[in-house]
Amino acid sequence: MTRTSTVLRESCGQSWDQLVENEFVAQMAAGSLPLDKFRFYIEQNLQYLPQYARMLGFAVANSQTSLYLQRFQRALKQIVEVEIPANERLLAEVIELGAASLGGVNPGPACIDYGNFLVSTAATGRSSDVIAAMLPCAWSYGDIAARHVTAAPHPVYEEWLGVFGGDDYQEYTERLVREADALIGDTTSTELERLKSIFATGVRMESRFWSDAMSVEVPSRLPG
Amino acid sequence: MTRTSTVLRESCGQSWDQLVENEFVAQMAAGSLPLDKFRFYIEQNLQYLPQYARMLGFAVANSQTSLYLQRFQRALKQIVEVEIPANERLLAEVIELGAASLGGVNPGPACIDYGNFLVSTAATGRSSDVIAAMLPCAWSYGDIAARHVTAAPHPVYEEWLGVFGGDDYQEYTERLVREADALIGDTTSTELERLKSIFATGVRMESRFWSDAMSVEVPSRLPG
Amino acid sequence: MTRTSTVLRESCGQSWDQLVENEFVAQMAAGSLPLDKFRFYIEQNLQYLPQYARMLGFAVANSQTSLYLQRFQRALKQIVEVEIPANERLLAEVIELGAASLGGVNPGPACIDYGNFLVSTAATGRSSDVIAAMLPCAWSYGDIAARHVTAAPHPVYEEWLGVFGGDDYQEYTERLVREADALIGDTTSTELERLKSIFATGVRMESRFWSDAMSVEVPSRLPG
Amino acid sequence: MTRTSTVLRESCGQSWDQLVENEFVAQMAAGSLPLDKFRFYIEQNLQYLPQYARMLGFAVANSQTSLYLQRFQRALKQIVEVEIPANERLLAEVIELGAASLGGVNPGPACIDYGNFLVSTAATGRSSDVIAAMLPCAWSYGDIAARHVTAAPHPVYEEWLGVFGGDDYQEYTERLVREADALIGDTTSTELERLKSIFATGVRMESRFWSDAMSVEVPSRLPG
Repeated sequence: MTRTSTVLRESCGQSWDQLVENEFVAQMAAGSLPLDKFRFYIEQNLQYLPQYARMLGFAVANSQTSLYLQRFQRALKQIVEVEIPANERLLAEVIELGAASLGGVNPGPACIDYGNFLVSTAATGRSSDVIAAMLPCAWSYGDIAARHVTAAPHPVYEEWLGVFGGDDYQEYTERLVREADALIGDTTSTELERLKSIFATGVRMESRFWSDAMSVEVPSRLPG
Repeated sequence: MTRTSTVLRESCGQSWDQLVENEFVAQMAAGSLPLDKFRFYIEQNLQYLPQYARMLGFAVANSQTSLYLQRFQRALKQIVEVEIPANERLLAEVIELGAASLGGVNPGPACIDYGNFLVSTAATGRSSDVIAAMLPCAWSYGDIAARHVTAAPHPVYEEWLGVFGGDDYQEYTERLVREADALIGDTTSTELERLKSIFATGVRMESRFWSDAMSVEVPSRLPG
Repeated sequence: MTRTSTVLRESCGQSWDQLVENEFVAQMAAGSLPLDKFRFYIEQNLQYLPQYARMLGFAVANSQTSLYLQRFQRALKQIVEVEIPANERLLAEVIELGAASLGGVNPGPACIDYGNFLVSTAATGRSSDVIAAMLPCAWSYGDIAARHVTAAPHPVYEEWLGVFGGDDYQEYTERLVREADALIGDTTSTELERLKSIFATGVRMESRFWSDAMSVEVPSRLPG
Repeated sequence: MTRTSTVLRESCGQSWDQLVENEFVAQMAAGSLPLDKFRFYIEQNLQYLPQYARMLGFAVANSQTSLYLQRFQRALKQIVEVEIPANERLLAEVIELGAASLGGVNPGPACIDYGNFLVSTAATGRSSDVIAAMLPCAWSYGDIAARHVTAAPHPVYEEWLGVFGGDDYQEYTERLVREADALIGDTTSTELERLKSIFATGVRMESRFWSDAMSVEVPSRLPG
């Protein structure tokens, strides 16, 4: 029987391919991405991750089994103890390297809508809904980095691609996807349609998150 | 002292003007809007209103004073007992008039994101946040219809503009805005910034809702 | 097939009989209940009902079908527009008649625990859980008043028993119970065990609510 | 200025003393507590801790600052990764030692009401409310064990008292209380009254939890 995660991903078709081949990441891999845009992206991440944590808080509160509760608690620990500090370090690093502010300390439309999607899904949905909302982020990061890991002339981008394209993260996402299938278990066709719809929104949100960071305007600088 | 509602609306500047002068409404007023698109819009409304009701459910649950609780209960009654049935009647009417389905029974991106914004705001926010999220919808409808009430050659659009441009609805939104100011009361500057941000997202959501309905593709029909 | 509501009530056995034959109500029917205790009871009601409204807010937010949503909205309207004002009028009346304060403006243990039970059930549970939590209150009131409606020498108690023992309220609870069965529909045995447990807690809470009001101490008064 | 935690504890007066000198703990210290009752207590704990985790889930979701969010996430990790497994080990140990079941796999009234209190407070309250709801449990455990740590002839009770009376746990609760004061910060008198009321309910719940375990009936056993 086809795994639920596979069904979800295949139901997205081209949207998934467009997500993992997005322009922002392509420019990172090519080394041509302006560092200011990367700073903007990291700053948006630091607005997004607390919303991700809130989603997981609701998910713990509403968890339907103790296995779900443990899974969401573990994901929450990862966000608060690992990912937020890692993004803070990366931000400090790019500021140190001279990246200018493009206004990323205020959440842009994609960041706001993505956060609302996560919180809303977990505040009213079932545990399997939260899994479907969580998957696109980690899974696409693993896929993106795997495609570009050999590239990246710029040291910061190389570092970023190295983390997400490295064996540890690849194993992490594989396990995450496997666990997702085990937790969700068998689905009715009604449930599966809802999960597809949630997963598709997650993929749309990831794409908008990258494209917002890509399209933020870099003011031309006067020669110093 | 300037009323909070006025501050919120003025802080949106051009976005408000673009919202209330949107193309969909302009074509309604001109009578040139394809009825299929109007059907799509009504169908999206019928996906959106239950999310609006869920927002109000959370708002009741988290209400900080009994005045807020009463206000949210009254708004919930209006949605469930008046607006959802009114949209259902309107949908039956346009289907009767031959409007074709453009897939509006499934929520589109604007509809999904708007619903998530409402639910997420009320699930985690304060009572005043919910007021700021509620305002753009009713207030802009009143403003839109007031600008176009004399127009509308098409009977369905005339009816729609007549309802929202009529004295009853105009008084309703005036009272709503006045009550909003009374409920919110004095704000700290931190609070006001948050309310502005929420209100601005609401205005953005309204604009996207109209433009999604405007841009839905109408397949060319074969001569019958 | 036995109706779910019947299964729930029968699973409570003696607890139900003890609830509907409680001492507070017996003294009301006999006309011997000190009016000060009745005032305390009404004041506790006025702390309890807003928690009941919050439960319904969460229930609307988390409702699993539109029928549930409509049912919870209707119940919320009843609480906010009818029951809270009715209790406020009754409180004014007994104060007018000279009932002294026994500290009922602060919620006592039974009132606090009952409110937490309602809110907690609706914040994390399914729609059927909320129905099971709602039922004991209205259903036992109908049952209590039906048993005592002919009695009551005291005009206030006669009024109270007349309302809940009257045809209108008897029909209201009959319909509520019938609707509950229709909404819950078929249950798995796991679900039924959970509903029984919630219903039993509701019955326990009702009993404690009456017994807290019964046992509140009336200070001896000096001859005036 | 008096610390908020001190104000809360002192406002409980005798209730606190009765809690920390409860009969269950006195019999543990004297070594006379039937092991069956201890098993019941541990089993109730294992029903209670998931509700504590749900409280922390809501607390994370609704956290008003990032410091609160981090604090609640850390507490959640402690519950899920440390306390639940520790209680599971202790349960296996007492079963191994021959403790009989007194029906503790089903939550009793005190366990149910305590869980509802925690979940309800966090689902609708502010971050400081959750702190006030959390404090009585850990703080009273530290206080109880410190009073009895030298005693306990029974190896299991000695172990239990050793853990909570040991330096590590004493430092843990001291830090918890200190952090609580820092997080809550200055309070208005309205806020302080609410916190007192929540803290007092927490103390009442702790007392009922012990007394339910104390009063559970041990069936007389036939001579083997």
